[in-house]
Amino acid sequence: MVLVSPRNPLNIGAAARAMANFGLLRLTVVAPYSPTWREARSAIGAPEQLQNAKETATLAEAVTRSTLVVGTGSLTYRKPEQPVVSLPDLGPLVQREIAHGGEVALVFGSEKHGLTREELSYCQLLVEIPTDPRQPSMNLGQAVAVCLYELASRSFKPDIIALAEQPDVTDPAAHSGRIDLLAGVVEQTMTAAGYSPSLMQEANRHDLRLLLRRLALKERDSKRILGLFRRIQWRLKRIQNGQ
Amino acid sequence: MVLVSPRNPLNIGAAARAMANFGLLRLTVVAPYSPTWREARSAIGAPEQLQNAKETATLAEAVTRSTLVVGTGSLTYRKPEQPVVSLPDLGPLVQREIAHGGEVALVFGSEKHGLTREELSYCQLLVEIPTDPRQPSMNLGQAVAVCLYELASRSFKPDIIALAEQPDVTDPAAHSGRIDLLAGVVEQTMTAAGYSPSLMQEANRHDLRLLLRRLALKERDSKRILGLFRRIQWRLKRIQNGQ
Repeated sequence: MVLVSPRNPLNIGAAARAMANFGLLRLTVVAPYSPTWREARSAIGAPEQLQNAKETATLAEAVTRSTLVVGTGSLTYRKPEQPVVSLPDLGPLVQREIAHGGEVALVFGSEKHGLTREELSYCQLLVEIPTDPRQPSMNLGQAVAVCLYELASRSFKPDIIALAEQPDVTDPAAHSGRIDLLAGVVEQTMTAAGYSPSLMQEANRHDLRLLLRRLALKERDSKRILGLFRRIQWRLKRIQNGQ
Repeated sequence: MVLVSPRNPLNIGAAARAMANFGLLRLTVVAPYSPTWREARSAIGAPEQLQNAKETATLAEAVTRSTLVVGTGSLTYRKPEQPVVSLPDLGPLVQREIAHGGEVALVFGSEKHGLTREELSYCQLLVEIPTDPRQPSMNLGQAVAVCLYELASRSFKPDIIALAEQPDVTDPAAHSGRIDLLAGVVEQTMTAAGYSPSLMQEANRHDLRLLLRRLALKERDSKRILGLFRRIQWRLKRIQNGQ
């Protein structure tokens, strides 16, 4: 589970407690507000999830090993750029990913504004908690509890367990760090080929990140595409050098 | 929804917010700790669920109109005297009760010790959130959110809606106040008949409350039994008076 820039130590504590309640161990906190983070971490009775939490500067680092990155939050005020599932339907998707040897990250944005557009671009999938349209926005600690309850109570169901017992790891999905590496090489190639004018670079980078995640790349495929683009780069350089 | 003796204003606020998130309106608070309750109620942005909350001195009053009273809490340290359902299985039961014209109360105990044995004796059913045995006890606001999410997300499912469209109100269940009335008359009868020695009175009262709730009485049946016991009382009195 990943918390991005949480501000309130009570919310951080509540999120960690919900993880303990539903048997989740690994917490990563992205760019936390330092005084708050220290306070939450040193609170009396803080669960081990807080003691052992990883800290990263960016969301990209936090999810680098993940093959399925799921963003959370209210979608009332924006049009999502990714597919959206309702929380009751998320369980089977997560279980299938794990059964295929993948790693899932569930990402929660800061209390104030949720996940930014930039942060959302690292997610393949958005999950929506079906709330009342008159009061859609949930408290962070409660949203975490509801999501983890849904996933934990799902995993006890026999059909899911049966699925998990037959892992198919022959063809694992590409993890987020691999996709970022690929995105970097593709972007360099675009620049080298004169495809992306400098004014459009930021927007193109954003679209590319979303596009590569829509592809649901396998590790194998991502390596192949990476090899292809490296070859193109090498070729472009030779042409430039007039060779 | 009923909160019994909540202590922490943040928890009261969080519970009310979860109600707003999942579209529940009616909140009753039993014997709240006054300063806390005033603070929670007057908090900035407190949802209307708090403004309009009912306040009662006892749980019996709070659930007097309910036909299905569901207690919540961790069962790790006690042997329950009622049937227990896991939260994922509660939705259909609640929906069926409502479809039959009944009224459901979901009861949460105080943060410190949950529902007491006395309070639990007003419940027909206990619900358990499937948590990790190493950390079973949930924060109050989070437990409320998880329960209401489960019930709200259930109610959107087509099979439940179909059920709710065909209400069977020809034979409604007896509400909690009716059962208490009956319990009182039965107890008087027991005393009058010399059945319940004074030392055992407290324990017998407790067992009777549980027993009458196990019967799942219809309103019709409860009236009939009440009539029977009143008749017995009248008869016993005549005998005592030597008539």
